[in-house]
Amino acid sequence: MPISLGELATRFGCELIGDPDAVANGVASLPNATPESLTFLANSSHLTELPSTQAAAVILRAQDANACPVAAFICDDPYAMYARMAEVVCPEARVEPGVHETAVVADSASVADSAHIGATVVVGERSSIGENAVIGPGSVIGPDSVIGDNCRLIANVTIVKDVTMGARCIFHPGAVIGSDGFGNAMTADGWIKVPQLGGVRIGNDVEIGANTTIDRGAIDDTVIEDGVRLDNLCMIAHNVHIGAHTAMAGMTGIAGSTTIGKRCLFAGASGAVGHINVCDDVIVAARAVLTKDVTVPGTYAASFAAVETRSWAKQVARFRRLGALIERVKKLER
Amino acid sequence: MPISLGELATRFGCELIGDPDAVANGVASLPNATPESLTFLANSSHLTELPSTQAAAVILRAQDANACPVAAFICDDPYAMYARMAEVVCPEARVEPGVHETAVVADSASVADSAHIGATVVVGERSSIGENAVIGPGSVIGPDSVIGDNCRLIANVTIVKDVTMGARCIFHPGAVIGSDGFGNAMTADGWIKVPQLGGVRIGNDVEIGANTTIDRGAIDDTVIEDGVRLDNLCMIAHNVHIGAHTAMAGMTGIAGSTTIGKRCLFAGASGAVGHINVCDDVIVAARAVLTKDVTVPGTYAASFAAVETRSWAKQVARFRRLGALIERVKKLER
Amino acid sequence: MPISLGELATRFGCELIGDPDAVANGVASLPNATPESLTFLANSSHLTELPSTQAAAVILRAQDANACPVAAFICDDPYAMYARMAEVVCPEARVEPGVHETAVVADSASVADSAHIGATVVVGERSSIGENAVIGPGSVIGPDSVIGDNCRLIANVTIVKDVTMGARCIFHPGAVIGSDGFGNAMTADGWIKVPQLGGVRIGNDVEIGANTTIDRGAIDDTVIEDGVRLDNLCMIAHNVHIGAHTAMAGMTGIAGSTTIGKRCLFAGASGAVGHINVCDDVIVAARAVLTKDVTVPGTYAASFAAVETRSWAKQVARFRRLGALIERVKKLER
Repeated sequence: MPISLGELATRFGCELIGDPDAVANGVASLPNATPESLTFLANSSHLTELPSTQAAAVILRAQDANACPVAAFICDDPYAMYARMAEVVCPEARVEPGVHETAVVADSASVADSAHIGATVVVGERSSIGENAVIGPGSVIGPDSVIGDNCRLIANVTIVKDVTMGARCIFHPGAVIGSDGFGNAMTADGWIKVPQLGGVRIGNDVEIGANTTIDRGAIDDTVIEDGVRLDNLCMIAHNVHIGAHTAMAGMTGIAGSTTIGKRCLFAGASGAVGHINVCDDVIVAARAVLTKDVTVPGTYAASFAAVETRSWAKQVARFRRLGALIERVKKLER
Repeated sequence: MPISLGELATRFGCELIGDPDAVANGVASLPNATPESLTFLANSSHLTELPSTQAAAVILRAQDANACPVAAFICDDPYAMYARMAEVVCPEARVEPGVHETAVVADSASVADSAHIGATVVVGERSSIGENAVIGPGSVIGPDSVIGDNCRLIANVTIVKDVTMGARCIFHPGAVIGSDGFGNAMTADGWIKVPQLGGVRIGNDVEIGANTTIDRGAIDDTVIEDGVRLDNLCMIAHNVHIGAHTAMAGMTGIAGSTTIGKRCLFAGASGAVGHINVCDDVIVAARAVLTKDVTVPGTYAASFAAVETRSWAKQVARFRRLGALIERVKKLER
Repeated sequence: MPISLGELATRFGCELIGDPDAVANGVASLPNATPESLTFLANSSHLTELPSTQAAAVILRAQDANACPVAAFICDDPYAMYARMAEVVCPEARVEPGVHETAVVADSASVADSAHIGATVVVGERSSIGENAVIGPGSVIGPDSVIGDNCRLIANVTIVKDVTMGARCIFHPGAVIGSDGFGNAMTADGWIKVPQLGGVRIGNDVEIGANTTIDRGAIDDTVIEDGVRLDNLCMIAHNVHIGAHTAMAGMTGIAGSTTIGKRCLFAGASGAVGHINVCDDVIVAARAVLTKDVTVPGTYAASFAAVETRSWAKQVARFRRLGALIERVKKLER
């Protein structure tokens, strides 16, 4: 949507160096920007791309303004400012309210007049869909669930049952919320299923990635607090509790009954075993797994960078023979 | 469903200490139980929660009965007993038989009169749906497949084709059964696809987690024996054979043509490489991967617990320099 | 489809030892082959199964022909030859062109007359479906996307939006292409979403596994070049670029903005961190993760084979105490 640089500066309270009547109408990266593009410089590794950019304007820090050949928005956090301005310059497509004729909505379900229920959506008994909610095609919402105001289920999302959420949550395709936890009791005749009778409670402003699964609680609920961000293909087991504004990158897995604090960051394919407590402000490196309570905020790691295979094989062989080396040192010490 | 403690004791053959006419009508954890809740104590770590519980009754071992302030069911395995009683106290919602008007069932498919085919379900040519089976909304069953009696596909499940199964299996949303295996042959022009022509054979009482995938065999079938339990986001490649009552926690991956024995337990994000044989009664720790035949039952491990990153970095640096340390010891030995 | 051995030999230009009028009508593994089965011997580990096979014919190398008790096709690459012949002997089921009456196609979308749009499929605004494309049941194609000629979406596939692809691509069930990347900016009020405005560009002859996700770019596009093969449950983050004919086995994850070269092979559950460049012809071992630029083709590894848990625990304990061992050696050296 075309918008003048002056209006952007005013709306977001940031300093503009350049013509306020110039117009941005789209976003681009620094090297690909055209004279209508808004772009940003948040990371010094892209500084070399700044002098040749042809953008309408660059969002950047004061220290980088001199090197900018075009208009500049000055602010302390260019990435966050870009996020806000991009939402205005490239707004989400409008979705018309109403229930598509191929959708199937249970008689006891309630759908806000302003909500959009897409093609082939199914809404179960006693569930409710909030104001301005958008339920994308192919999504299934089971019984006894609450989709909050302004929530968006992009497409093919499954809300199994007994799931409640606040406002403005986003669920990407293939996400499954409220599936049975992995509860099995061994008997002489093999496993018997332990009924999974809890629900899932999700706060406001939560975003859940594609094909991520969040299981319902066994008895009490699984809880995802406000502002949590889960990337794709994550696995949140039953009775996990994730604190507000914690973010987990793709393929992270949290085993059952573990409590994660607020503002934690889990890098890709990391995780935690079950039944532990992790305090606020913990950062877990890629592919590391927490195995016991964490009571001290900080950064935790446990994985090896890949090296050339022959070198790795030698390193492992030495590792496997450490016991023998220790014996040799003991012998020398005697 | 309200039921008297006396009736539960009689039905499941376990000793009741307390008023047989008292009624349970729901389940709860020990601390959250109300005077209508059934609860259990299976793990001594929850013993401190017992004295203050307000439950209708607690399922526990004889040794814990004295500390129980309310009625008690005495048994040897409270967790399994809870699983059985909970199924009675909180029964699955009844599902009406019949084919939903938005479902699309191929002319050559057969559907038992007692089966439920939900909204927007698609059933392919020559497939059959057994007695009392429940096919949840959005599920797609391709051609030439057999859904056994009392099986349940919760919602948005995909049975691709040539999949057969026994009775009482459960498939959680997003599960994909019978997708093509990863068969590719390199040629001068790049990969060519190797047609995947086997099927998937699943036994009785199998449960498959949300977004788990089980590939069809390349030529012969992929086989999942009776009572197998797979959690969410697991990956079973083509021609894998999983023995009866083996359980795999979330994110476990088994590569192609590997045979896993009976009663094995794979912890979260563990796995096995392809073309190996794993005997019965093997336990694999979280994030460990089996890389060769396992012929001795037991527990296998291979991952490091996360530690503070600076400490981890030092440990890795020492590991990388083990060769130099060995040389120094050699020199000392001379 | 029954076909004479002579016709197969002629069509694929390979030598036949045996009766050209004999007929193959199906495929099987060496031990399970019947007198109508085509089979192959590509791997010497199966040589012991050759003498007793009852196949119609075995595709094998010249060196193995003498041991073959039945007809033999002689070629240099039996696995690739099998792939080609199997496609003829067991052809894909024909799919009728046309749009199923339960499909929902936007007015501004275009669908080739020869394409098949299955039951409950949804096609969004301004998207186009190419000649002979097959869109399986339950699939959702969002707006502004291009499904190339002869592409196949098996079932329940989600193409979110702004996805383009070449010809002959295959997408297995549950695959999600074009979902939002994981872009979040931290602010005093918690995370704000960074709009994901790029698309996904996919080449020709790409195959994407079940429940694999490929995110749209943040600003520029995510790119998957010709002939790429991704197995199930892989995660390709925003702005990743994967070179032609690279193959990734199940559960592989590539973090954002990483560029992978051509003809790379990623074994199961391997991956790469974000913002790195990996050259052509790199092989990554199972569960290894690349953490920095790779400029030398070759094989890279980083994981430990599982061993008996008690042994592993000792090995880890020695690893954790390496610093103390080094001190002891230092003391000896003094």
